[in-house]
Amino acid sequence: MTRWALLLEYDGAEYCGWQLQPNGVSLQGLLEAAASRLAAGARVPSVVAGRTDAGVHAAGQVAAIDLPDRYDARVVREALNFHLKPHPLVVLQAAAVPQRWSPRFEAVERTYIYCVLNRRARPGLDRRVWHVPQPLDAAAMQRAAAALHGRHDFTSFRAAACQALSPWRTLDALIVRADRDILQIQAVARSFLHHQVRNMVGTLRLVGDGSWPEARVAEALAARSRTAAGPTAPPDGLTLASVRYPTDPFSPAAPDPAPAAASPH
Amino acid sequence: MTRWALLLEYDGAEYCGWQLQPNGVSLQGLLEAAASRLAAGARVPSVVAGRTDAGVHAAGQVAAIDLPDRYDARVVREALNFHLKPHPLVVLQAAAVPQRWSPRFEAVERTYIYCVLNRRARPGLDRRVWHVPQPLDAAAMQRAAAALHGRHDFTSFRAAACQALSPWRTLDALIVRADRDILQIQAVARSFLHHQVRNMVGTLRLVGDGSWPEARVAEALAARSRTAAGPTAPPDGLTLASVRYPTDPFSPAAPDPAPAAASPH
Repeated sequence: MTRWALLLEYDGAEYCGWQLQPNGVSLQGLLEAAASRLAAGARVPSVVAGRTDAGVHAAGQVAAIDLPDRYDARVVREALNFHLKPHPLVVLQAAAVPQRWSPRFEAVERTYIYCVLNRRARPGLDRRVWHVPQPLDAAAMQRAAAALHGRHDFTSFRAAACQALSPWRTLDALIVRADRDILQIQAVARSFLHHQVRNMVGTLRLVGDGSWPEARVAEALAARSRTAAGPTAPPDGLTLASVRYPTDPFSPAAPDPAPAAASPH
Repeated sequence: MTRWALLLEYDGAEYCGWQLQPNGVSLQGLLEAAASRLAAGARVPSVVAGRTDAGVHAAGQVAAIDLPDRYDARVVREALNFHLKPHPLVVLQAAAVPQRWSPRFEAVERTYIYCVLNRRARPGLDRRVWHVPQPLDAAAMQRAAAALHGRHDFTSFRAAACQALSPWRTLDALIVRADRDILQIQAVARSFLHHQVRNMVGTLRLVGDGSWPEARVAEALAARSRTAAGPTAPPDGLTLASVRYPTDPFSPAAPDPAPAAASPH
Protein backbone atom coordinates (compact mmCIF):
# COMPACT_ATOMS: atom_id res chain seq x y z
CA MET A 1 0.00 0.00 0.00
CA THR A 2 1.01 3.60 -0.58
CA ARG A 3 -0.05 6.40 1.72
CA TRP A 4 -1.28 9.48 -0.12
CA ALA A 5 -1.58 12.99 1.26
CA LEU A 6 -4.48 14.79 -0.42
CA LEU A 7 -4.93 18.57 -0.59
CA LEU A 8 -8.70 19.16 -0.59
CA GLU A 9 -11.04 22.03 -1.38
CA TYR A 10 -14.74 21.91 -0.53
CA ASP A 11 -17.89 23.90 -0.01
CA GLY A 12 -19.36 22.48 3.19
CA ALA A 13 -22.75 24.22 2.97
CA GLU A 14 -24.74 21.13 1.98
CA TYR A 15 -22.89 18.55 4.10
CA CYS A 16 -23.07 17.39 7.70
CA GLY A 17 -19.39 18.14 8.29
CA TRP A 18 -16.15 16.25 7.73
CA GLN A 19 -16.80 13.23 9.93
CA LEU A 20 -18.87 10.19 9.00
CA GLN A 21 -22.36 10.43 10.43
CA PRO A 22 -25.09 7.81 10.69
CA ASN A 23 -27.51 10.25 9.04
CA GLY A 24 -26.49 12.80 6.45
CA VAL A 25 -23.79 13.06 3.83
CA SER A 26 -20.31 13.78 5.21
CA LEU A 27 -17.23 14.90 3.30
CA GLN A 28 -15.29 11.99 4.80
CA GLY A 29 -17.96 9.63 3.50
CA LEU A 30 -17.71 11.11 0.00
CA LEU A 31 -13.90 10.89 -0.04
CA GLU A 32 -13.82 7.33 1.30
CA ALA A 33 -16.48 6.17 -1.17
CA ALA A 34 -14.46 7.63 -4.06
CA ALA A 35 -11.22 6.09 -2.71
CA SER A 36 -12.90 2.71 -2.37
CA ARG A 37 -13.37 2.71 -6.16
CA LEU A 38 -9.56 2.72 -6.44
CA ALA A 39 -9.18 -0.16 -3.99
CA ALA A 40 -11.39 -2.82 -5.61
CA GLY A 41 -14.28 -1.80 -3.36
CA ALA A 42 -12.39 -2.30 -0.09
CA ARG A 43 -13.05 0.22 2.69
CA VAL A 44 -10.45 3.03 2.65
CA PRO A 45 -10.32 4.83 6.01
CA SER A 46 -9.06 8.42 5.97
CA VAL A 47 -7.40 10.72 8.49
CA VAL A 48 -7.76 14.49 8.20
CA ALA A 49 -5.95 17.55 9.54
CA GLY A 50 -9.07 19.41 10.69
CA ARG A 51 -12.43 17.77 11.30
CA THR A 52 -14.54 20.68 10.09
CA ASP A 53 -18.12 21.03 11.38
CA ALA A 54 -21.31 20.97 9.33
CA GLY A 55 -21.41 23.97 6.99
CA VAL A 56 -17.69 24.78 7.29
CA HIS A 57 -15.60 25.01 4.10
CA ALA A 58 -12.00 24.26 3.17
CA ALA A 59 -9.57 25.73 0.66
CA GLY A 60 -6.59 23.68 1.89
CA GLN A 61 -7.73 20.72 4.02
CA VAL A 62 -5.25 17.82 4.14
CA ALA A 63 -6.31 14.17 4.34
CA ALA A 64 -4.44 10.87 4.06
CA ILE A 65 -5.57 7.54 2.63
CA ASP A 66 -3.83 4.25 1.78
CA LEU A 67 -4.26 2.82 -1.71
CA PRO A 68 -2.86 -0.22 -3.56
CA ASP A 69 0.61 0.48 -4.97
CA ARG A 70 -0.34 0.61 -8.63
CA TYR A 71 -1.11 4.38 -8.99
CA ASP A 72 0.90 7.53 -9.57
CA ALA A 73 -0.02 10.95 -8.12
CA ARG A 74 -1.72 12.19 -11.28
CA VAL A 75 -3.95 9.12 -11.49
CA VAL A 76 -4.90 9.31 -7.80
CA ARG A 77 -5.94 12.96 -8.14
CA GLU A 78 -7.80 12.54 -11.43
CA ALA A 79 -9.56 9.30 -10.50
CA LEU A 80 -10.70 10.62 -7.11
CA ASN A 81 -12.00 13.81 -8.74
CA PHE A 82 -13.85 11.73 -11.30
CA HIS A 83 -15.56 9.66 -8.61
CA LEU A 84 -16.28 12.73 -6.42
CA LYS A 85 -18.45 14.33 -9.13
CA PRO A 86 -20.75 16.21 -8.87
CA HIS A 87 -20.02 17.12 -5.25
CA PRO A 88 -18.16 20.38 -4.52
CA LEU A 89 -15.29 18.39 -2.97
CA VAL A 90 -12.12 18.18 -5.09
CA VAL A 91 -8.57 16.93 -4.76
CA LEU A 92 -6.17 19.76 -5.66
CA GLN A 93 -3.03 17.68 -5.23
CA ALA A 94 -2.02 14.15 -4.27
CA ALA A 95 1.45 13.25 -2.98
CA ALA A 96 2.94 9.98 -1.78
CA VAL A 97 4.05 10.22 1.86
CA PRO A 98 5.74 7.89 4.34
CA GLN A 99 3.61 4.99 5.62
CA ARG A 100 3.10 6.41 9.10
CA TRP A 101 2.62 10.04 8.05
CA SER A 102 -0.44 11.64 9.73
CA PRO A 103 -2.04 14.84 8.40
CA ARG A 104 -3.46 15.44 11.85
CA PHE A 105 -0.57 14.80 14.23
CA GLU A 106 2.23 16.20 12.10
CA ALA A 107 0.50 19.50 11.35
CA VAL A 108 2.35 22.40 12.97
CA GLU A 109 -0.01 25.20 11.98
CA ARG A 110 -3.63 25.58 10.92
CA THR A 111 -5.03 28.76 9.39
CA TYR A 112 -8.74 29.51 9.34
CA ILE A 113 -10.41 32.46 7.63
CA TYR A 114 -13.78 33.70 8.83
CA CYS A 115 -15.72 36.03 6.50
CA VAL A 116 -18.36 38.47 7.66
CA LEU A 117 -20.53 40.30 5.12
CA ASN A 118 -21.20 43.60 6.87
CA ARG A 119 -23.94 45.42 5.02
CA ARG A 120 -27.72 45.74 5.04
CA ALA A 121 -28.46 43.47 2.06
CA ARG A 122 -28.14 39.72 2.52
CA PRO A 123 -25.55 37.98 0.30
CA GLY A 124 -26.33 37.63 -3.39
CA LEU A 125 -22.98 36.49 -4.76
CA ASP A 126 -20.72 35.28 -1.95
CA ARG A 127 -22.71 33.06 0.34
CA ARG A 128 -19.80 31.65 2.35
CA VAL A 129 -20.17 34.50 4.85
CA TRP A 130 -21.87 35.44 8.08
CA HIS A 131 -24.28 38.23 7.22
CA VAL A 132 -24.18 40.93 9.91
CA PRO A 133 -26.36 43.92 8.94
CA GLN A 134 -25.36 46.13 11.90
CA PRO A 135 -22.25 48.27 11.19
CA LEU A 136 -19.11 46.74 12.73
CA ASP A 137 -16.05 48.65 13.91
CA ALA A 138 -13.25 46.50 12.49
CA ALA A 139 -10.52 48.55 14.19
CA ALA A 140 -12.11 47.99 17.62
CA MET A 141 -12.43 44.27 16.85
CA GLN A 142 -8.76 44.12 15.86
CA ARG A 143 -7.67 45.84 19.09
CA ALA A 144 -9.86 43.51 21.17
CA ALA A 145 -8.55 40.45 19.32
CA ALA A 146 -5.03 41.23 20.56
CA ALA A 147 -6.10 40.11 24.05
CA LEU A 148 -6.45 36.55 22.73
CA HIS A 149 -2.99 36.32 21.13
CA GLY A 150 -0.52 33.97 22.77
CA ARG A 151 -0.79 30.99 25.11
CA HIS A 152 -3.97 30.85 27.20
CA ASP A 153 -6.56 28.60 28.79
CA PHE A 154 -9.31 29.02 26.17
CA THR A 155 -12.09 27.38 28.23
CA SER A 156 -14.32 30.40 27.59
CA PHE A 157 -14.12 29.77 23.84
CA ARG A 158 -14.46 25.99 23.90
CA ALA A 159 -17.56 24.00 22.93
CA ALA A 160 -19.10 21.86 25.68
CA ALA A 161 -18.58 18.84 23.40
CA CYS A 162 -14.85 19.54 22.93
CA GLN A 163 -12.82 16.37 23.47
CA ALA A 164 -9.37 17.95 23.75
CA LEU A 165 -7.45 16.90 26.89
CA SER A 166 -6.32 20.44 27.64
CA PRO A 167 -8.02 23.83 27.17
CA TRP A 168 -4.59 25.47 26.66
CA ARG A 169 -3.77 26.61 23.18
CA THR A 170 -1.33 29.08 21.63
CA LEU A 171 -3.00 31.52 19.26
CA ASP A 172 -0.30 32.76 16.88
CA ALA A 173 -2.49 35.28 15.08
CA LEU A 174 -6.01 36.66 15.16
CA ILE A 175 -6.20 39.42 12.57
CA VAL A 176 -9.26 41.42 11.53
CA ARG A 177 -9.12 43.01 8.08
CA ALA A 178 -11.86 45.08 6.43
CA ASP A 179 -12.20 45.39 2.66
CA ARG A 180 -15.31 47.36 1.69
CA ASP A 181 -18.21 45.41 3.20
CA ILE A 182 -16.24 42.21 3.86
CA LEU A 183 -14.53 41.61 7.21
CA GLN A 184 -11.96 38.82 7.18
CA ILE A 185 -10.80 37.34 10.46
CA GLN A 186 -7.70 35.18 10.13
CA ALA A 187 -6.89 32.78 12.99
CA VAL A 188 -3.59 30.88 13.11
CA ALA A 189 -2.54 28.24 15.68
CA ARG A 190 -0.94 24.81 15.88
CA SER A 191 -4.39 23.51 16.80
CA PHE A 192 -7.75 24.85 17.93
CA LEU A 193 -10.37 23.72 20.44
CA HIS A 194 -13.79 22.70 19.14
CA HIS A 195 -15.69 25.84 17.98
CA GLN A 196 -12.81 28.05 19.14
CA VAL A 197 -12.63 30.17 16.00
CA ARG A 198 -16.40 30.57 15.77
CA ASN A 199 -16.62 31.45 19.48
CA MET A 200 -13.86 34.05 19.15
CA VAL A 201 -15.59 35.56 16.10
CA GLY A 202 -18.98 35.60 17.86
CA THR A 203 -17.32 37.43 20.76
CA LEU A 204 -15.45 39.95 18.59
CA ARG A 205 -18.70 40.76 16.83
CA LEU A 206 -20.08 42.02 20.18
CA VAL A 207 -17.16 44.45 20.32
CA GLY A 208 -17.69 45.39 16.67
CA ASP A 209 -21.34 46.34 17.08
CA GLY A 210 -20.68 48.24 20.32
CA SER A 211 -22.43 45.77 22.67
CA TRP A 212 -19.16 45.14 24.50
CA PRO A 213 -16.28 47.43 25.45
CA GLU A 214 -13.00 46.16 23.99
CA ALA A 215 -11.60 45.26 27.41
CA ARG A 216 -14.37 42.75 28.06
CA VAL A 217 -12.73 40.22 25.70
CA ALA A 218 -9.76 39.90 28.06
CA GLU A 219 -12.18 39.50 30.98
CA ALA A 220 -14.10 36.78 29.13
CA LEU A 221 -10.83 34.92 28.51
CA ALA A 222 -9.77 35.24 32.15
CA ALA A 223 -13.15 33.95 33.39
CA ARG A 224 -12.42 30.46 31.98
CA SER A 225 -16.14 29.93 31.54
CA ARG A 226 -17.99 29.44 28.27
CA THR A 227 -20.85 31.63 29.49
CA ALA A 228 -18.48 34.58 29.88
CA ALA A 229 -17.79 34.81 26.13
CA GLY A 230 -20.08 35.61 23.20
CA PRO A 231 -22.25 33.27 21.15
CA THR A 232 -20.93 30.87 18.49
CA ALA A 233 -20.75 32.46 15.04
CA PRO A 234 -22.49 30.40 12.33
CA PRO A 235 -20.44 27.90 10.29
CA ASP A 236 -21.19 29.52 6.91
CA GLY A 237 -18.38 32.08 7.14
CA LEU A 238 -15.62 29.66 8.20
CA THR A 239 -13.00 28.17 5.85
CA LEU A 240 -9.99 26.03 6.74
CA ALA A 241 -7.51 27.92 4.57
CA SER A 242 -4.32 25.92 5.01
CA VAL A 243 -2.36 23.43 7.10
CA ARG A 244 1.39 23.65 7.49
CA TYR A 245 3.83 20.75 8.01
CA PRO A 246 7.55 20.73 8.85
CA THR A 247 7.97 19.51 5.26
CA ASP A 248 5.21 20.41 2.80
CA PRO A 249 4.15 17.08 1.28
CA PHE A 250 2.85 18.88 -1.82
CA SER A 251 5.97 20.90 -2.51
CA PRO A 252 7.90 19.74 -5.58
CA ALA A 253 10.97 19.93 -3.33
CA ALA A 254 9.55 17.54 -0.72
CA PRO A 255 11.86 14.57 -0.03
CA ASP A 256 11.03 11.30 -1.72
CA PRO A 257 8.72 9.24 0.52
CA ALA A 258 10.92 6.13 0.43
CA PRO A 259 13.93 7.54 2.34
CA ALA A 260 11.58 9.58 4.57
CA ALA A 261 9.76 6.35 5.49
CA ALA A 262 13.01 5.07 6.96
CA SER A 263 13.13 7.99 9.42
CA PRO A 264 12.17 7.34 13.08
CA HIS A 265 8.52 8.52 12.95
CA MET B 1 -44.68 58.23 -8.88
CA THR B 2 -41.00 58.27 -7.94
CA ARG B 3 -38.35 56.70 -10.14
CA TRP B 4 -35.85 54.62 -8.20
CA ALA B 5 -32.40 53.57 -9.34
CA LEU B 6 -31.50 50.20 -7.83
CA LEU B 7 -27.99 48.82 -7.44
CA LEU B 8 -28.32 45.04 -7.75
CA GLU B 9 -26.19 42.00 -6.98
CA TYR B 10 -27.12 38.53 -8.18
CA ASP B 11 -25.90 35.03 -8.85
CA GLY B 12 -27.35 34.19 -12.25
CA ALA B 13 -26.49 30.47 -12.24
CA GLU B 14 -30.04 29.25 -11.67
CA TYR B 15 -31.88 31.81 -13.78
CA CYS B 16 -32.73 32.20 -17.46
CA GLY B 17 -31.05 35.62 -17.64
CA TRP B 18 -32.17 39.17 -16.92
CA GLN B 19 -35.03 39.45 -19.39
CA LEU B 20 -38.56 38.13 -18.87
CA GLN B 21 -39.04 34.80 -20.60
CA PRO B 22 -42.22 32.85 -21.30
CA ASN B 23 -40.59 29.77 -19.71
CA GLY B 24 -38.13 29.93 -16.86
CA VAL B 25 -37.44 32.30 -14.00
CA SER B 26 -35.77 35.58 -14.98
CA LEU B 27 -34.14 38.14 -12.72
CA GLN B 28 -36.34 40.85 -14.24
CA GLY B 29 -39.38 38.76 -13.36
CA LEU B 30 -38.22 38.38 -9.76
CA LEU B 31 -37.52 42.11 -9.38
CA GLU B 32 -40.81 43.17 -10.95
CA ALA B 33 -42.81 40.70 -8.83
CA ALA B 34 -41.17 42.07 -5.66
CA ALA B 35 -41.76 45.67 -6.81
CA SER B 36 -45.39 44.90 -7.54
CA ARG B 37 -45.85 44.17 -3.82
CA LEU B 38 -44.96 47.83 -3.18
CA ALA B 39 -47.42 49.10 -5.79
CA ALA B 40 -50.67 47.51 -4.57
CA GLY B 41 -50.19 44.62 -6.99
CA ALA B 42 -49.90 46.80 -10.10
CA ARG B 43 -47.38 45.76 -12.75
CA VAL B 44 -44.04 47.58 -12.27
CA PRO B 45 -41.94 47.50 -15.46
CA SER B 46 -38.18 47.84 -15.07
CA VAL B 47 -35.33 49.05 -17.24
CA VAL B 48 -31.79 47.75 -16.73
CA ALA B 49 -28.27 48.83 -17.67
CA GLY B 50 -27.12 45.44 -18.97
CA ARG B 51 -29.46 42.64 -20.00
CA THR B 52 -27.28 39.79 -18.80
CA ASP B 53 -27.67 36.35 -20.40
CA ALA B 54 -28.68 33.14 -18.66
CA GLY B 55 -26.04 32.11 -16.12
CA VAL B 56 -24.32 35.53 -16.02
CA HIS B 57 -23.88 37.25 -12.64
CA ALA B 58 -23.84 40.86 -11.43
CA ALA B 59 -22.06 42.67 -8.61
CA GLY B 60 -23.21 46.14 -9.70
CA GLN B 61 -26.14 45.93 -12.11
CA VAL B 62 -28.33 49.05 -12.22
CA ALA B 63 -32.10 48.95 -12.77
CA ALA B 64 -34.87 51.56 -12.55
CA ILE B 65 -38.49 51.18 -11.49
CA ASP B 66 -41.33 53.60 -10.70
CA LEU B 67 -43.13 53.28 -7.37
CA PRO B 68 -45.89 55.25 -5.63
CA ASP B 69 -44.53 58.32 -3.83
CA ARG B 70 -44.96 57.07 -0.28
CA TYR B 71 -41.55 55.39 0.28
CA ASP B 72 -38.07 56.52 1.24
CA ALA B 73 -34.85 54.89 -0.03
CA ARG B 74 -34.35 52.70 3.01
CA VAL B 75 -37.88 51.30 2.81
CA VAL B 76 -37.59 50.62 -0.93
CA ARG B 77 -34.35 48.67 -0.44
CA GLU B 78 -35.49 46.73 2.63
CA ALA B 79 -38.96 45.92 1.31
CA LEU B 80 -37.65 44.75 -2.08
CA ASN B 81 -35.04 42.58 -0.35
CA PHE B 82 -37.73 41.11 1.87
CA HIS B 83 -39.89 40.17 -1.11
CA LEU B 84 -36.89 38.89 -3.14
CA LYS B 85 -36.11 36.20 -0.54
CA PRO B 86 -34.85 33.52 -0.87
CA HIS B 87 -33.46 34.26 -4.33
CA PRO B 88 -29.78 35.31 -4.65
CA LEU B 89 -30.87 38.70 -6.06
CA VAL B 90 -30.49 41.64 -3.67
CA VAL B 91 -30.82 45.41 -3.75
CA LEU B 92 -27.59 46.94 -2.44
CA GLN B 93 -28.80 50.54 -2.72
CA ALA B 94 -31.88 52.45 -3.82
CA ALA B 95 -31.79 56.12 -4.83
CA ALA B 96 -34.50 58.46 -6.12
CA VAL B 97 -33.65 59.74 -9.62
CA PRO B 98 -35.28 62.14 -12.09
CA GLN B 99 -38.47 60.87 -13.75
CA ARG B 100 -36.91 60.29 -17.17
CA TRP B 101 -33.60 58.86 -15.93
CA SER B 102 -32.63 55.64 -17.76
CA PRO B 103 -30.05 53.20 -16.35
CA ARG B 104 -29.51 51.93 -19.88
CA PHE B 105 -29.18 55.05 -22.03
CA GLU B 106 -27.36 57.25 -19.55
CA ALA B 107 -24.66 54.71 -18.72
CA VAL B 108 -21.26 55.90 -19.95
CA GLU B 109 -19.21 52.85 -19.01
CA ARG B 110 -19.82 49.18 -18.26
CA THR B 111 -17.23 46.92 -16.63
CA TYR B 112 -17.40 43.15 -16.88
CA ILE B 113 -15.11 40.68 -15.13
CA TYR B 114 -14.63 37.19 -16.54
CA CYS B 115 -13.05 34.57 -14.24
CA VAL B 116 -11.22 31.49 -15.47
CA LEU B 117 -10.20 28.77 -13.01
CA ASN B 118 -7.02 27.43 -14.57
CA ARG B 119 -6.10 24.19 -12.85
CA ARG B 120 -6.68 20.47 -13.19
CA ALA B 121 -9.33 20.10 -10.47
CA ARG B 122 -12.82 21.38 -11.15
CA PRO B 123 -14.10 24.15 -8.86
CA GLY B 124 -14.97 23.22 -5.28
CA LEU B 125 -15.39 26.65 -3.69
CA ASP B 126 -15.75 29.33 -6.37
CA ARG B 127 -18.17 28.11 -8.98
CA ARG B 128 -18.66 31.42 -10.81
CA VAL B 129 -15.76 30.54 -13.12
CA TRP B 130 -14.96 28.89 -16.42
CA HIS B 131 -12.93 25.80 -15.58
CA VAL B 132 -10.05 25.42 -18.06
CA PRO B 133 -7.79 22.50 -17.09
CA GLN B 134 -5.12 23.14 -19.77
CA PRO B 135 -2.37 25.55 -18.63
CA LEU B 136 -2.95 29.08 -19.99
CA ASP B 137 -0.27 31.66 -20.74
CA ALA B 138 -1.79 34.79 -19.21
CA ALA B 139 1.00 37.04 -20.50
CA ALA B 140 0.39 35.90 -24.09
CA MET B 141 -3.34 36.46 -23.62
CA GLN B 142 -2.69 39.98 -22.32
CA ARG B 143 -0.47 40.82 -25.29
CA ALA B 144 -3.05 39.44 -27.74
CA ALA B 145 -5.85 41.35 -25.99
CA ALA B 146 -4.16 44.64 -26.85
CA ALA B 147 -5.18 44.13 -30.51
CA LEU B 148 -8.81 44.60 -29.46
CA HIS B 149 -8.33 47.87 -27.57
CA GLY B 150 -9.88 50.96 -29.12
CA ARG B 151 -12.59 51.60 -31.69
CA HIS B 152 -13.30 48.72 -34.08
CA ASP B 153 -15.97 46.91 -36.06
CA PHE B 154 -16.47 43.94 -33.68
CA THR B 155 -18.54 41.83 -36.11
CA SER B 156 -16.21 38.87 -35.46
CA PHE B 157 -17.12 38.94 -31.75
CA ARG B 158 -20.85 39.56 -32.11
CA ALA B 159 -23.61 36.99 -31.58
CA ALA B 160 -25.80 36.24 -34.61
CA ALA B 161 -28.79 37.32 -32.51
CA CYS B 162 -27.25 40.73 -31.65
CA GLN B 163 -29.78 43.51 -32.23
CA ALA B 164 -27.41 46.48 -32.07
CA LEU B 165 -27.66 48.79 -35.09
CA SER B 166 -23.89 49.08 -35.47
CA PRO B 167 -21.08 46.56 -34.93
CA TRP B 168 -18.71 49.41 -33.99
CA ARG B 169 -17.72 49.67 -30.36
CA THR B 170 -14.90 51.30 -28.42
CA LEU B 171 -13.16 48.92 -26.06
CA ASP B 172 -11.53 51.03 -23.36
CA ALA B 173 -9.80 48.16 -21.59
CA LEU B 174 -9.31 44.42 -21.90
CA ILE B 175 -6.93 43.36 -19.16
CA VAL B 176 -5.83 39.82 -18.26
CA ARG B 177 -4.57 39.31 -14.70
CA ALA B 178 -3.38 36.04 -13.17
CA ASP B 179 -3.51 35.39 -9.43
CA ARG B 180 -2.46 31.82 -8.61
CA ASP B 181 -4.90 29.60 -10.52
CA ILE B 182 -7.45 32.35 -11.23
CA LEU B 183 -7.31 34.40 -14.43
CA GLN B 184 -9.40 37.56 -14.37
CA ILE B 185 -10.23 39.29 -17.63
CA GLN B 186 -11.61 42.80 -17.18
CA ALA B 187 -13.46 44.38 -20.10
CA VAL B 188 -14.49 48.05 -20.06
CA ALA B 189 -16.56 49.91 -22.69
CA ARG B 190 -19.46 52.33 -22.97
CA SER B 191 -21.45 49.38 -24.30
CA PHE B 192 -20.87 45.89 -25.65
CA LEU B 193 -22.37 43.83 -28.45
CA HIS B 194 -24.29 40.68 -27.57
CA HIS B 195 -21.84 37.98 -26.39
CA GLN B 196 -18.90 40.30 -27.11
CA VAL B 197 -17.11 39.71 -23.81
CA ARG B 198 -17.64 35.94 -23.90
CA ASN B 199 -16.50 35.78 -27.54
CA MET B 200 -13.36 37.79 -26.77
CA VAL B 201 -12.60 35.52 -23.80
CA GLY B 202 -13.21 32.36 -25.86
CA THR B 203 -10.78 33.71 -28.45
CA LEU B 204 -8.09 34.75 -25.95
CA ARG B 205 -8.26 31.26 -24.44
CA LEU B 206 -7.07 29.87 -27.80
CA VAL B 207 -4.00 32.09 -27.49
CA GLY B 208 -3.56 31.09 -23.86
CA ASP B 209 -3.49 27.36 -24.53
CA GLY B 210 -1.18 27.74 -27.54
CA SER B 211 -3.78 26.84 -30.21
CA TRP B 212 -3.41 30.30 -31.79
CA PRO B 213 -0.42 32.58 -32.30
CA GLU B 214 -1.00 35.95 -30.63
CA ALA B 215 -1.22 37.79 -33.97
CA ARG B 216 -4.25 35.78 -35.05
CA VAL B 217 -6.51 37.82 -32.74
CA ALA B 218 -5.91 40.96 -34.83
CA GLU B 219 -6.59 38.92 -37.98
CA ALA B 220 -9.85 37.61 -36.51
CA LEU B 221 -10.92 41.18 -35.73
CA ALA B 222 -10.02 42.39 -39.23
CA ALA B 223 -11.94 39.53 -40.87
CA ARG B 224 -15.29 40.98 -39.65
CA SER B 225 -16.75 37.50 -39.58
CA ARG B 226 -17.97 35.60 -36.54
CA THR B 227 -16.42 32.38 -37.84
CA ALA B 228 -12.96 33.99 -37.81
CA ALA B 229 -12.93 34.33 -34.01
CA GLY B 230 -12.96 31.71 -31.26
CA PRO B 231 -15.94 30.03 -29.59
CA THR B 232 -18.19 31.71 -27.01
CA ALA B 233 -16.94 31.23 -23.45
CA PRO B 234 -19.60 29.85 -21.06
CA PRO B 235 -21.69 32.31 -19.03
CA ASP B 236 -20.62 30.93 -15.63
CA GLY B 237 -17.46 33.04 -15.42
CA LEU B 238 -19.02 36.39 -16.38
CA THR B 239 -20.05 39.11 -13.92
CA LEU B 240 -21.31 42.62 -14.67
CA ALA B 241 -19.08 44.37 -12.15
CA SER B 242 -20.21 48.00 -12.42
CA VAL B 243 -21.94 50.64 -14.50
CA ARG B 244 -20.79 54.25 -14.51
CA TYR B 245 -22.95 57.36 -15.00
CA PRO B 246 -22.00 61.02 -15.48
CA THR B 247 -23.40 61.48 -11.95
CA ASP B 248 -23.43 58.39 -9.71
CA PRO B 249 -27.05 58.10 -8.54
CA PHE B 250 -25.90 56.15 -5.45
CA SER B 251 -23.25 58.59 -4.33
CA PRO B 252 -24.18 60.50 -1.18
CA ALA B 253 -23.07 63.60 -3.11
CA ALA B 254 -25.51 63.00 -5.99
CA PRO B 255 -27.78 66.00 -6.61
CA ASP B 256 -31.27 65.85 -5.16
CA PRO B 257 -33.65 64.33 -7.71
CA ALA B 258 -36.17 67.16 -7.46
CA PRO B 259 -33.98 69.91 -8.99
CA ALA B 260 -32.42 67.37 -11.37
CA ALA B 261 -35.90 66.45 -12.61
CA ALA B 262 -36.28 70.03 -13.78
CA SER B 263 -33.22 69.67 -16.04
CA PRO B 264 -33.74 69.13 -19.79
CA HIS B 265 -33.38 65.34 -19.92
